Amino acid sequence: MQIAIGLYPGFTALDAIGPYQVLSQLPGATVVFTAVKAGLLRDDTVLTVQIDTTIDQIPNPDIIVIPGGMATRKLLGGDPLVDWVRAVHPTTTWTTSVCTGSLVLAAAGLLPGLKATTHWAAADQLEALGATYTADRVVRQGKIYTAAGVSSGIDMALTLAAEIAGPMVAQAIQLGIEYDPQPPFDSGSPEKADPAVRELIRSLLSAGSARALAD
Amino acid sequence: MQIAIGLYPGFTALDAIGPYQVLSQLPGATVVFTAVKAGLLRDDTVLTVQIDTTIDQIPNPDIIVIPGGMATRKLLGGDPLVDWVRAVHPTTTWTTSVCTGSLVLAAAGLLPGLKATTHWAAADQLEALGATYTADRVVRQGKIYTAAGVSSGIDMALTLAAEIAGPMVAQAIQLGIEYDPQPPFDSGSPEKADPAVRELIRSLLSAGSARALAD
Repeated sequence: MQIAIGLYPGFTALDAIGPYQVLSQLPGATVVFTAVKAGLLRDDTVLTVQIDTTIDQIPNPDIIVIPGGMATRKLLGGDPLVDWVRAVHPTTTWTTSVCTGSLVLAAAGLLPGLKATTHWAAADQLEALGATYTADRVVRQGKIYTAAGVSSGIDMALTLAAEIAGPMVAQAIQLGIEYDPQPPFDSGSPEKADPAVRELIRSLLSAGSARALAD
Repeated sequence: MQIAIGLYPGFTALDAIGPYQVLSQLPGATVVFTAVKAGLLRDDTVLTVQIDTTIDQIPNPDIIVIPGGMATRKLLGGDPLVDWVRAVHPTTTWTTSVCTGSLVLAAAGLLPGLKATTHWAAADQLEALGATYTADRVVRQGKIYTAAGVSSGIDMALTLAAEIAGPMVAQAIQLGIEYDPQPPFDSGSPEKADPAVRELIRSLLSAGSARALAD
């Protein structure tokens, strides 16, 4: 079971690493980080990862995971990563995204008229690409899973792990990563956050000073 | 505000990336991934990151974050990373760990008689190093924060973010990463998990076939 996580310069790290930490524990799984070019690739802040395997070398992944990032917007007009998603999707077992990674899936033509999710601040962009934005944390349509913003990839991956290996294995992985979340605040969604908090993050996002937060 | 995330070969990725995703959004924060040697460094699975700045080049970090990993056990007998933690701790503003990263703090002599946490499966090891294991998700003792297993670093970092920049900023960061966790199961702690799930993960851990799960 080959799981390919498709990166690009400017991706948001937690979008990729959340699912990676879960899915790499699946029995029989082989995970590979891939991108258009081999060599060093930087996320949206200071994390630099080494890519050894290009997307050209992965013609038949069983599962793909596309993380989000502000930089997804640069891919939407046409990019080899979008072409790869379009090319491999017919033969994947599961095609997945986190955050604005769903914009890449949409740009590849995978989501016409389908329900999908993304970061709450990118809902309009997802709809503009032909999908129907759904404010759920994890949305499944056939073999496509889309997850909401950044941290939601952990929930998506555990859901997928249960589909693939059964609920016992998924729960064991959850216990292994001690995923018993206890956020100090209840402000993780626009509906729950204080209006002043919403305004604060919106102003940071529009000022471009919170690089990763919109991803 | 320099935030140094101290890596070593075999670290667990989510331990490091959870806090990174939160703390890098703090106003005025500069995050650096550091290690004993410059160059490529691999986690416990297939993620390879580039290290540009060695610990020798970071004598006065404001905040340190030490992630966990099975490989922490190799450091405990003596390692430059442990020496660095011991050397910089007196002048840090905050000294933090995730998962078995607390074993490194303990090996550096930072936790004698203090309450601390770690991955639930490593409680005995933490106690053997002189700390008092506490089964809370985030434990603060003065300027030291320890977090429980793997995913708990997100909760720790949000708590720390509120200490540093106030609850409004912490809540904005939480909303930015859409951290509104909805795990598909409630099996994230030994107390909550089904006994059969506990046995499954324990057998995987003891067989060494679940590389990252004990970290």
